[in-house]
Amino acid sequence: MEIIGFIAAFLTTAAFLPQVYKTYKSKDVSSLSMPMLLLFFIGIVLWLVYGIQIDSPSMIVANSITVVSAFLLMYFKYIYSKKS
Amino acid sequence: MEIIGFIAAFLTTAAFLPQVYKTYKSKDVSSLSMPMLLLFFIGIVLWLVYGIQIDSPSMIVANSITVVSAFLLMYFKYIYSKKS
Repeated sequence: MEIIGFIAAFLTTAAFLPQVYKTYKSKDVSSLSMPMLLLFFIGIVLWLVYGIQIDSPSMIVANSITVVSAFLLMYFKYIYSKKS
Repeated sequence: MEIIGFIAAFLTTAAFLPQVYKTYKSKDVSSLSMPMLLLFFIGIVLWLVYGIQIDSPSMIVANSITVVSAFLLMYFKYIYSKKS
């Protein structure tokens, strides 16, 4: 039932976007830890690889979007940490 | 290659635990939004259902752990919001 996967993909990626937006607007990265973001980023890249291997459209779509979100959070952490 | 999935599962669940611990210790839930947590929780439940349907051990393990983390964050949000 790929529809279940797509609803799951929509909900978990949607839940992640407000964090990205909030971090972008507030420039407050104090509560984000770079090692944690890095673990998460690598984890999502591996989920994407896994999704491609098991040929799961839901996982490929969800993790392609989340990998961008995770990258942006690392980028914000890097640039906003330098400024303060 | 189930090993890729298991490494992914380990990394993404591990990245989530510090947030749960930090919220528990600090009792600071101001930056967490209940609608977002609820979306995330439902999304993880659906990923778990999807993982069972496509018979993916990595997804079943990862989402079983994350569903508990997500539930705890909702619980903390509920009890600590009431107190302040």
